This record gives sequence, C-alpha cells and structure tokens, in this order.
Amino acid sequence: MIVELLSVGTEILLGDIVNTNAAFLSRECANLGLCCYYQSVVGDNCERLKNSLELALKRADIVILSGGLGPTPDDLTKEVAASVFEQKLTLHKPSKENIIAYFKSRNKEISENNWKQAMIPEGAIVLSNENGTAPGVIMEKGEKRIILLPGPPNELIPMFKEKVVPYLRSLSSDYLVSKVVKIYGIGEGMVASRIQDLIDNQTNPTIATYAKTGEVHLRITALCHGEEEGDELIAPMLQVLYDRFGDAIFTISEEETLEDVLVSLLKEKNMTITTAESCTGGMLASKIIDVSGASSVMKEGFITYANEAKETYAFVSKETLDTFGAVSYQVAKEMAEGVAKRTGANVAVSVTGIAGPDGGTEEKPVGLVYIGCHVNGKTDYVECHFAGNRLKIRENSVKAALFLARKCILNWYNK
Amino acid sequence: MIVELLSVGTEILLGDIVNTNAAFLSRECANLGLCCYYQSVVGDNCERLKNSLELALKRADIVILSGGLGPTPDDLTKEVAASVFEQKLTLHKPSKENIIAYFKSRNKEISENNWKQAMIPEGAIVLSNENGTAPGVIMEKGEKRIILLPGPPNELIPMFKEKVVPYLRSLSSDYLVSKVVKIYGIGEGMVASRIQDLIDNQTNPTIATYAKTGEVHLRITALCHGEEEGDELIAPMLQVLYDRFGDAIFTISEEETLEDVLVSLLKEKNMTITTAESCTGGMLASKIIDVSGASSVMKEGFITYANEAKETYAFVSKETLDTFGAVSYQVAKEMAEGVAKRTGANVAVSVTGIAGPDGGTEEKPVGLVYIGCHVNGKTDYVECHFAGNRLKIRENSVKAALFLARKCILNWYNK
Repeated sequence: MIVELLSVGTEILLGDIVNTNAAFLSRECANLGLCCYYQSVVGDNCERLKNSLELALKRADIVILSGGLGPTPDDLTKEVAASVFEQKLTLHKPSKENIIAYFKSRNKEISENNWKQAMIPEGAIVLSNENGTAPGVIMEKGEKRIILLPGPPNELIPMFKEKVVPYLRSLSSDYLVSKVVKIYGIGEGMVASRIQDLIDNQTNPTIATYAKTGEVHLRITALCHGEEEGDELIAPMLQVLYDRFGDAIFTISEEETLEDVLVSLLKEKNMTITTAESCTGGMLASKIIDVSGASSVMKEGFITYANEAKETYAFVSKETLDTFGAVSYQVAKEMAEGVAKRTGANVAVSVTGIAGPDGGTEEKPVGLVYIGCHVNGKTDYVECHFAGNRLKIRENSVKAALFLARKCILNWYNK
Repeated sequence: MIVELLSVGTEILLGDIVNTNAAFLSRECANLGLCCYYQSVVGDNCERLKNSLELALKRADIVILSGGLGPTPDDLTKEVAASVFEQKLTLHKPSKENIIAYFKSRNKEISENNWKQAMIPEGAIVLSNENGTAPGVIMEKGEKRIILLPGPPNELIPMFKEKVVPYLRSLSSDYLVSKVVKIYGIGEGMVASRIQDLIDNQTNPTIATYAKTGEVHLRITALCHGEEEGDELIAPMLQVLYDRFGDAIFTISEEETLEDVLVSLLKEKNMTITTAESCTGGMLASKIIDVSGASSVMKEGFITYANEAKETYAFVSKETLDTFGAVSYQVAKEMAEGVAKRTGANVAVSVTGIAGPDGGTEEKPVGLVYIGCHVNGKTDYVECHFAGNRLKIRENSVKAALFLARKCILNWYNK
C-alpha cells in the first residue's frame, strides 16, 4: 500500500519549526512496510490544502495529515478533509466530554471555539487524545483513506503508536515485524562488509544498515502473519549478528539509547559512576542524568576544564600534565583513577580532548580525544580521532565514553 | 515572488533524517520576503522528481531543490532539472578543478563517478562549493528559476547565505532587512500584549513574535532599498523595544545564543564562572563550554546530584538540607555560595530541582526548580515552575541559569 504525508501549518512553511512529525511518521510507515513516495507541507489555507489533499489521494491509498486540528478558525484540516470526502461533520459526544474533562483538570475555562474540536465527519473512526483536546480521525471512502492527527508531537506520537499502527496493520494480511540492532564503534562500511553475505542472500527477513552519529543501526524486517512468527523468522539472523559483532551490539531495543543501557547495567550490578570531563564539559554527566532514575547510580561528577582543576579535583599530577600535556592518555587515565579515588564510585569515566575550532596542533589535532575508564582497580583508555565541528566532536566523545564504561563493566565486573 | 521548496532524497521519505534543510530555507526565504506556499519531499526517482518539479514550477516563480547532486547514479536532481528546462549538461572546468583539489587535499582517489558533479546545464550560474564536491546551480528560463543546492547542511547553508541570498535579492527592487530581538523570561502572550500598539499600527517596518524554548523572538522587518536604509527604518522601533523590555532583551544578533551572550559578557568583564548542578547534571556547564573559547572563563564545575555531594563539594550545610530539602532556594543559594568559595570564581551558578518524571510531591511538584547565582559577595535566586518532560524541564532550567547569571553580572559588576 502507498501512503503519503501531508503536514499542515504555516509555521512549518515559515521555518519556525522543524517538521519532525514527518520524520517520525515516515519511519513508522516504513517499518509497517508502507511505501511513501511523497511528503508535502502546506499552510493553513483552505484552497491550497484542498488541492494538496486531492493530489495526494490520487497518488496514494492512505493520506496522513498532521496539524490544523486546533480550535481556532485557522485550523481547517478536518473541515477540508470532510469536504473532499463529501462527509458531514457532526458532534461527537465522547470528544466533547474529553474536552470538558481536559479543561477541568487544568482549571481552565473552555472557549466557544473548543467545541469545533468535537465535530467529527460522519462514519469516521475517532482516535481519542489523552494528551490534548483534538481527537484524531480516520476517514474511509472506497479504497481511499484519510488519517488526521494533531500537530503537537507529544499528542501525535502516542496516538499514532497506540491507535493508528493497529489500524494500518489491520488493512493488510501482510504483517511486518522489524527489529533494530544497534552497534557502536564500527563504521558503516565495515559493518556492511561483514554482513555482505546476509545482504546478498536476504529474502525474508531482509536486512539494511543505517549510519547514526557514532552508531550503526541494522534493521531486520520479516514479512509474516503476526508478532510471534516474525520473532521466529528474525531470531536466526539476530543470532548470526551477535556471533559476528558480540558486545559491539549494545541493544536491540528500538527506544533504548547508549546511556539507557549504561544506567541499566549499573543498576543491575548495583554500581555507581562518576565523571571527570574536560572538553565535553558536563555533557557526559548530563547524558547519564538524562536517564530517569539516574540518581541511584550517579552521585557527583566533575568538570575539570583547566589543568589546575584536573590536579585539584582529579588528582592528576603536575608532572604528568607537564610531560604529556592535558590531552594524553596518561592524563585521561589519571583523571579516571583520581575521581574514582576521590568519590569511591565503582566506575569512573574521564574525557580529555581538543574539540576545536582552536587549540589544535600538528601533533595533537582538533578531534583528538582520550577517554579513560577505571573499574575495580583497572583502568582502560581509548584514543579517538573525530571529525566535524566542536559540538559533533563533543557528542562523539560522549558516546565513546558511555561505550567504554559499558565495556569495562562487562569485562571487569566479577573478575 | 513565490518560492517553493523541493527536497530530494529517499532517506527523508524513510524518516532516516529530519528535513532541517527545509526549515532553514523556509526561514531564509521568509526573511527575504519571498512567499512559500508549498514544500515537498520526493525520493531519488526520475519520474516522480520530474512530476514534482513541473508542478512546483506551475505554482511558483522560483523552485529551490536540495539534495541529489552527489556522484552516484541515484543522484538525479541536476539531470532532471536540465531536462525540464530543456537544457544540455556540459563540462564546467572550474568545478572539475575544484573536485580535483578537494580529493587531493584529502589524499583520496577520485572515482569516475565524480566527474558527473562537474557537468552543468548550459547557461546556468554555477555556485562553487567550498565544503564539498557538488557545485550549486541557478538555472533561468523565461520568468522561472530553478536553484539546485547540495543536501548536506554544512554545504547547503554557507552556499545559500553567501551565494543564493545575494542572487535572490537582485531579483527584486524591494529589499527586506530584518532584525531579530531575543527576549528571555517573559511569555509570548505577555510580550505580545506589551507591543499590541506596535502590532496594530505596523506598516514599515513590520513586527512579529515567535515563541522558542523559554525565549520569545521578535522579528522586525523593513521594506527598503538597501541595508543602510533598512537599519534606519528599524532603529526607532528597536529603541521602543529596548525602552519596554530593557535587559530582558539579551541579544539582537541572529546567530547569538544566551550562552554566547554570557560568555562574551564574562570575557568582557574579565570574570570567571563555575557551576553546581543537581537536576541539570552538567547540562549548564556543557552549554557554557559549547561556546568556543570558554576555557578562558570556565575552569571547573560540579555535578552535585546527591545530597552528600552538595555538602562535600558545595559546602551546603546538613541543617539546610534537612530543614528545607534539597529542592529549596536556601540550598540553591548555599550551593552557589559554596562553589564560589571553593573555586574563587567570580560568578557561581547553581541549579536544584525536580526534573521528573518521578520525585514530585504536592508541595514540590515535578518542574519546580531553584536557580542561584553568586556574584561579588551577593546572591540572588529564582524559583521556576516548568512544564514538560524531564529533558524540557532541564533545558528550561539551563536557560534560566544562563539568564540569571547574566542579570547578576549586569546588576552587581562594578557596584
């Protein structure tokens, strides 16, 4: 089946917001095996919206619209969609009640405009909105379908996952199950060459690679009749990937990030972590603390940007700094060992490097970063050479630090 | 003049990348006074690309395409555009030389495919690419124009700013100059109500408000004949805004962020800064260190996530923690004062709050954050109530901390 996305909103046309909804919906549709050939954006204008929707319905079986379901007269999406399908809008009582409940829980007054959001095209499927006042709508006419979703991502994403995905699955006897395998530390070209045989011989499941910042994701997709059969089809290929990439695979969960994995591992082993950061300047600690519940594994961390701070807080010796310079594996090691000693944390991670744009030399160019990790009396380090701007180099350094910490815990815990 | 954006790339249709180019181009076009009614995305498919381009040329005077200028057979944008305008591709020698120089400087071998990137439609304007091998192209036919830009943002953005903006300006005797006024700490509704008279009476220049995370941006746009006249037209309105919003305006530079402003201010006053962070967990320090050259103002910072860490590193007293709890203005103040004392930094900023999703109580709900700042023997604090998820609350806390630091420096320096 062919799907087309149509985002509605003048704020997108003016560049005030980035259209992340389209990226989310595209990815979800691709995972469901739907083909998407076109995406469009149109403003809050009746005629242009109508033209765009009619064109999309010629090209696709399903058109997913997002935005323009708000309470103001500018919000036209539902009205236009109803007119294109020649369906009347009628009051939908549960949606009205949801609006009343929503405003009541927030102690806000309902304006006359809001009732517009409870008007639904006759015969349509209503998707209740637990995070806002605009219900979603699925409209059918012959073989064509229009799906209307609210624009705010915190309303659109759960509504799509919980209500639209099951609907779209029900339209086809073909069922796609897909699994993502996330790998750190091996380039996309290298990953691809190591699974060339799998790529060449793929039938069902299929496999594809995607490069992300510092990571490579493999997506295995099985055509099947249900979740269970899909998992069975995927399992052997998954096993092959584990055999070939081992611990470089840090998760096979769609939602899980490297920091999630590290925090879970620390919790599981009942360990604590601390950090000593130079060029990343708190970004590593911040990533760890991004994970809800990180307070049970992280008590403190240090930003030791200046040499004196490395000495004072991480016990790096002046000799080491003078002899090897702040950006050296010797300093990375001493930083990790120092903050481990200072705090008594089970795991201590350090970062020191040159994020640029200034400060690089021929011997130590911009992008040179050393990461240290101390666990259970042992210290490991990695030397990294990152490309890109200051932010990119720092982001990559954080990933490398998270991964090294995970590796050291896996290697040295219980030994 | 009407402009339309057409992004080319199957990776966008699959949701592998977010289409930030479209947001950038939309914003730039709006600033130039061009009207954009439609944006589209199409994959690397000859027929669909051709259809989309022909449709866009019917609706707009100028179509800006991005992506699909690479060296592989998949990259079709230039070929399709040339065929739509019935123009032949010929070898463009300076582009060929640029490709040779590019590969030479990177010690890489040129593949046969790369020469394709030096083929240019006859009579077209070539936009040299300093950051890659694909030149941009401007094609004209009658009143219609096609502009082709490379897809990678680090190539597209400088090429657009340096080469396409002057070209687009040259097309019209109307010249738009615009200035952004960035305000922190006042909600969009309040800002709008305070300038209602300016909005109601706007002619030239015009004024519009845009809400950003924790910030409100005002854009003043003057229709004029050149930069100088534009600045003159904008100056009186700018003065009115300064009179009404004072120090809440933290910059009138398009590119400058709150952290840029703070670091510049610290440099100007020859001051240093340190941080003590609880719920932001390093994010504040990381933002400061995002600014290139921050090493001259920031030597060290502390993540004091646990109560004991607040005592040990920020000298917060156990009594204060026990009496008022970690999330209190008293603790925020002691944290700031403590790390100021510990480090001798001129400015010390602290953050303590409940980022959620857990940990909230009726008295101290998720989103409650206290920010402290100590400068020159004085300490100020703010109590904030932020909505949104964990990340949003932490991001808002960082903004509040950056702004409070700026305010305290402005108030207390030299006094």
